[in-house]
Amino acid sequence: DDLVIGSKGDLSIATKDGDFSFAIDGRMMWDTDYYSGVHHNSSSHSDPGSNAFGSELRRSRLAFKGTVYSDWHYKFQYTFNANSGEKNQLEDAYIKYTGWDFADITVGKYKFPFGLEELVSSKHISTIERSAMVEFVRAGRSEQNIQLSNGGKNYSWAFGLYEGEQDENGSELYNLVGRATFAPIVTDNQVFHLGAAVFKSDIDDANPVEVKFTERLSVHTADKINLANTLNANDHIQYGLEAAWMTGPFSLQSEYVSSTWEDDTNEVEYSGYYVQGTWTLTGESRSYKAKKGIFDKISPKGANGAVELVAKFEHGEIDDDRTGAVENAFDNVTVGVNWYVNKNVRLSANYIMTELDEDDANGEDDGNAFSTRLQLIW
Amino acid sequence: DDLVIGSKGDLSIATKDGDFSFAIDGRMMWDTDYYSGVHHNSSSHSDPGSNAFGSELRRSRLAFKGTVYSDWHYKFQYTFNANSGEKNQLEDAYIKYTGWDFADITVGKYKFPFGLEELVSSKHISTIERSAMVEFVRAGRSEQNIQLSNGGKNYSWAFGLYEGEQDENGSELYNLVGRATFAPIVTDNQVFHLGAAVFKSDIDDANPVEVKFTERLSVHTADKINLANTLNANDHIQYGLEAAWMTGPFSLQSEYVSSTWEDDTNEVEYSGYYVQGTWTLTGESRSYKAKKGIFDKISPKGANGAVELVAKFEHGEIDDDRTGAVENAFDNVTVGVNWYVNKNVRLSANYIMTELDEDDANGEDDGNAFSTRLQLIW
Amino acid sequence: DDLVIGSKGDLSIATKDGDFSFAIDGRMMWDTDYYSGVHHNSSSHSDPGSNAFGSELRRSRLAFKGTVYSDWHYKFQYTFNANSGEKNQLEDAYIKYTGWDFADITVGKYKFPFGLEELVSSKHISTIERSAMVEFVRAGRSEQNIQLSNGGKNYSWAFGLYEGEQDENGSELYNLVGRATFAPIVTDNQVFHLGAAVFKSDIDDANPVEVKFTERLSVHTADKINLANTLNANDHIQYGLEAAWMTGPFSLQSEYVSSTWEDDTNEVEYSGYYVQGTWTLTGESRSYKAKKGIFDKISPKGANGAVELVAKFEHGEIDDDRTGAVENAFDNVTVGVNWYVNKNVRLSANYIMTELDEDDANGEDDGNAFSTRLQLIW
Repeated sequence: DDLVIGSKGDLSIATKDGDFSFAIDGRMMWDTDYYSGVHHNSSSHSDPGSNAFGSELRRSRLAFKGTVYSDWHYKFQYTFNANSGEKNQLEDAYIKYTGWDFADITVGKYKFPFGLEELVSSKHISTIERSAMVEFVRAGRSEQNIQLSNGGKNYSWAFGLYEGEQDENGSELYNLVGRATFAPIVTDNQVFHLGAAVFKSDIDDANPVEVKFTERLSVHTADKINLANTLNANDHIQYGLEAAWMTGPFSLQSEYVSSTWEDDTNEVEYSGYYVQGTWTLTGESRSYKAKKGIFDKISPKGANGAVELVAKFEHGEIDDDRTGAVENAFDNVTVGVNWYVNKNVRLSANYIMTELDEDDANGEDDGNAFSTRLQLIW
Repeated sequence: DDLVIGSKGDLSIATKDGDFSFAIDGRMMWDTDYYSGVHHNSSSHSDPGSNAFGSELRRSRLAFKGTVYSDWHYKFQYTFNANSGEKNQLEDAYIKYTGWDFADITVGKYKFPFGLEELVSSKHISTIERSAMVEFVRAGRSEQNIQLSNGGKNYSWAFGLYEGEQDENGSELYNLVGRATFAPIVTDNQVFHLGAAVFKSDIDDANPVEVKFTERLSVHTADKINLANTLNANDHIQYGLEAAWMTGPFSLQSEYVSSTWEDDTNEVEYSGYYVQGTWTLTGESRSYKAKKGIFDKISPKGANGAVELVAKFEHGEIDDDRTGAVENAFDNVTVGVNWYVNKNVRLSANYIMTELDEDDANGEDDGNAFSTRLQLIW
Repeated sequence: DDLVIGSKGDLSIATKDGDFSFAIDGRMMWDTDYYSGVHHNSSSHSDPGSNAFGSELRRSRLAFKGTVYSDWHYKFQYTFNANSGEKNQLEDAYIKYTGWDFADITVGKYKFPFGLEELVSSKHISTIERSAMVEFVRAGRSEQNIQLSNGGKNYSWAFGLYEGEQDENGSELYNLVGRATFAPIVTDNQVFHLGAAVFKSDIDDANPVEVKFTERLSVHTADKINLANTLNANDHIQYGLEAAWMTGPFSLQSEYVSSTWEDDTNEVEYSGYYVQGTWTLTGESRSYKAKKGIFDKISPKGANGAVELVAKFEHGEIDDDRTGAVENAFDNVTVGVNWYVNKNVRLSANYIMTELDEDDANGEDDGNAFSTRLQLIW
C-alpha cells in the first residue's frame, strides 16, 4: 500500500510521499567515572582530593516526532533518568513550519543555536562529555522560544527569541540569539566549517540573575569546581567562534567562547577555547549537515565497527573585576577512544587530566579521571 | 494481511475486524498573552494593573490507547509540560468495558461528566480558554473513579462515583455525579442539544475541604482574581444546564452553572452562565457526537482551511452569607477567530474584555487581554 | 515485505530475521481494599482499628523495548501513577548484550535477582499483592547495576553488582547478589523448581543505612505495621530459598527468606516463609520460563477464560538483640480467586486474615481485608 514502515530498532511509519510521518526513537547512556584531586574536592567528603568512583544512567530518553501535511513538524522528547523528579527533564516540545522559502519557523522548547559542540547531538559528540566552557554557555533550554532558521548546501543561519527571566513587573523578557555558519568546502569526506554566534540577555536591573561560576570539568558524576564567586548580574552577552576542518578519517575542531556578566559596578568574564582532533582508524569520515552547520554520526563500514581516537585540549579562565576576586583558570586534556560497534551501539573511554591555576579549597591544583560510556540508540 | 495501519501524523494499528487496536496521538499548544488591569493585579508586581506579557507551552501531551478482545479498551494520557514536576500531570489512565448492552463501565482516572464546554476536548473548544465558571466547577480529575455511561443517536447519560477527600478516619469518600443529554435534532449540519448535570460531594464534617474562590478569567498566564474569601466547607452541591443550537456554519451554545459550598453556618454560591456564538465563514459545521453529548472537531473542506469567528459573553457572581463578605461579580466578553489550517493545525486569536463589579485589591475594576495559540495535534 | 507487525492490543514490529525489533506494551491495575484491625492502626485516624476503604490505580505503566543487530537489547519502563511525582517511578532502563555463549550482560536499572515471587511479573503473581517478606527484601531497584546471567532448559543463574549507598568519602558502593535455580522436572504441565539467592550489602561503617521494619501486610492502601524499631545498620546479608512443584492445574510454591541487619553492637533478623497453592478449575497450567527460573502467565483455553483458586499462608518474625526490643511476628492467610477473562484481562479477589503476635500501638492483634483488582495488560 502507500505506507513505508521501518524498524532498525526504532519505529518509523510514513506515507510514501512523506507528507505524513511518525517515529519513536530513544537513547540510553550508562557511564562510569573514576576520579581524584580537584574533581573530588567537596568538603562533605571524608577525604577530599582522594580517589572516588561514580556511575550513572547519564541519559535515558524517548523522542516522539512526526510530520503532518508535509510542512508541519513536531518533536517531543523527555529524559526519564530517575525516580526522583529532579533529574527528569523535558528536552524538546516544539512545532516547526517549513512551508516558507525564506525560513523555517520553530516555536516551543528546544536547544537555542549557540556553539558547534553544543548543537551536535549528545549521541554523536567525540568525547564523552562536552567541554566545560560549552556547558557553561549553553544555559538551560527555556520553554517558550521562537526561531527563524534556514540553510543550504554550504551555509546555515538561525535567529531567535528565547525566554529569559521576568522583569520586576512579572512580564516575561526574551533574550536574543543568532548563529551563522559557512562551509567553503563540503564533500562526503572533506569539510571546512566556520561559524559564529551571539547571545544577548534582556535582564531587568531591578530583578538581577544569580550566576554561579562553579563547574564540572568533563566528569559528570564528580564535584563542581569554583572558578569565581556568585554574581547577581543585570547584564549579559556571550559570543562564540567555531572552526572545523575534516579530511577523510581526520578532523580538527575548535571553538572560542566568551561570556560576560555584569552588575552595576563589576564585570566577570568567563572565556575559553578548545581544540579537538579525531582520527578514525577504520577510515570512516564524520558526517556533516551543512543545512544545520553541525557534525553528525559516524556510520561504521566494516563488520567489526569503526574505531576512532580523539584528543582534546581545553582552556578556560575567569577575569573578575571585584576586589579580592577568585580568578581561576584551568587546562583540561582529554584522550579517548570510541568503538562504534554498529550503527546503534557505541563504547567510549576517556582519560582526563586537569590542572587549575589556583588551588581549590582543599589545596589541590590538579586531578585526573577515567570515564567510560556504553551507549545504545534506536 | 489482516492489519490496518494508518498515519496521519499519528500512529494507529488495528486488526481488520477492529477487535485489537493500538494508537498513539498527541497535542501541543503554544500560547502568548498580553494583558492588563485586573488580569495583572498581584501585589508582587512593581506596577499592578499595568500591561504584561506571558507565553507558555499550554499543553504538551501524549496519549496511548487501544482495544483488546473488542470490548476492553484502555487509554493512557500524560501532560509533559515542563522540567519541574508540578506542571506535569496524569490526565487519563482508565479501563473501559463496552460488552454490556445496558451501559459501558469505566474505572480509573478520567474527566468526570459535568458540563458541555468541559467535556469538549481542549483541542476543539471554540475559544482559547474555557469559561472561568467551567474551570471552577471542573475540579481536578481524581484518580479512582467508576462510571456507567451509554448513549444513542440523540441521547447520552453518564453516572458515576468520583473519589473525593478522606473522612477523619482515613477512609476514602466518593462524590456522586450524573449528566444526561438529549438532542431533539441531530443531522450533519443541524443540532439542537439540551443537557443537565449534577455533582454532590461527600465531605466529612470533621475533615472539611478548603475552597478557594480565586480564578483566572480566560487568560492562563495572568494572575488570579479574588471573587470571595476561602471557605472550609463540609457540604457541596453543583449543577449545570446546557443548551446548544447549530445550523450549518452557525452555532449558539450556552451553559448555566451553580456551585454551592457550605460550612456549619455559612454558604457561598458561585453561579454564572455564558452564551457563545460561532460562525464558520468557510461554511463548515461543527461536528457533534450524540453518543457522548459533546461537540467535536471542525474538518476544513477547502485547501486553505476553515475560518471561524467566535463571540462569547460570560457572567459570574458570588453570593456569600458571611459578614463583610467579598461578593465579586464579573462580565467577560471574548471575540476571536480560529483558522483551521488543516485537520492537524489551528491558529487562534482572542480579545478579552473583563469588568469586575467590585474593584480588586489594587483598585482596578476592568482589564483587557489579547491571546494567541498555535496548536498542532496528531 | 520483510517486516512482521503485530497487534494484540500492543504494538510490535520486527524484521523477519528478528535482528531488529521494537515493541510498546503496558499494564493498568485498579484496586479496591476494605480493611480493619491492624491494617488500619495509624493514630492519625479518628477510630484506629475500625473498618476503612481505599482504592488506587496500583500500577499504570508503559514499556518500550527493542533489539538491534540481534544481540543488543534495550528496555525502558516507567510508572505514571499520579499527578504528584512521588508515586511515579522509573522501573527499567537497561541495555543487554546477548552475544556471548558464556553469559548475557545487563547494565542499567532493573530488578535484581532475588526471590521467586519477586521475579514473577506483577502481572502474573497468583495473589493481588506479593508476600510482606518478599516486599521487605526486594529493596528498591537502584539505578546503576551490572549483571551476568544465563540459563538453559532446566537451570538459570544470575550474578551482579547492585548500586548501594555511598561511603563517607562520596564514592559509590556496590552490593553483591546472586541467584541460581534448577528444575529437575520441566514439561508444559509438570515443573519441579528449586532455587537459592544471596544478597550481601557493602555499607561504610561511617555512613550507616537507616532500616525501617514497618510493613504493609498484603493490603496496599492500608497502614504500615511496626515489626521492630528502626536500626542504623552498617552490615547486611540476606538469603532466600525457593521450591515449587506444579502438576497440571495444581501448583505449590514456597520461599524462605532471612534478612539480617547489624550495627556495631546489635543485630535484627527478619525472617519468614510462605506456602502457596493454586488450582486452575478450568484445567490450564501455569507457564514456566526455565531460562529465568520464574513462573509466567496463565493462557486461558476456553471462551470464558480461566478460573484459578489460590490459598497462601505466610509467617514472618523479628529477632531483635536490642534491650526492650519490639519483636513482632505475624501470620497472614490469603484465599483468593482469579478470573483470567482473556489473555489481556484479569479480575482478582483476595480475602486476607492477619494475626500479630504482639498487639500494635492501638491494642489490636488481628485484622482482615477484602481486596479486588481489575487488570488490563497490552
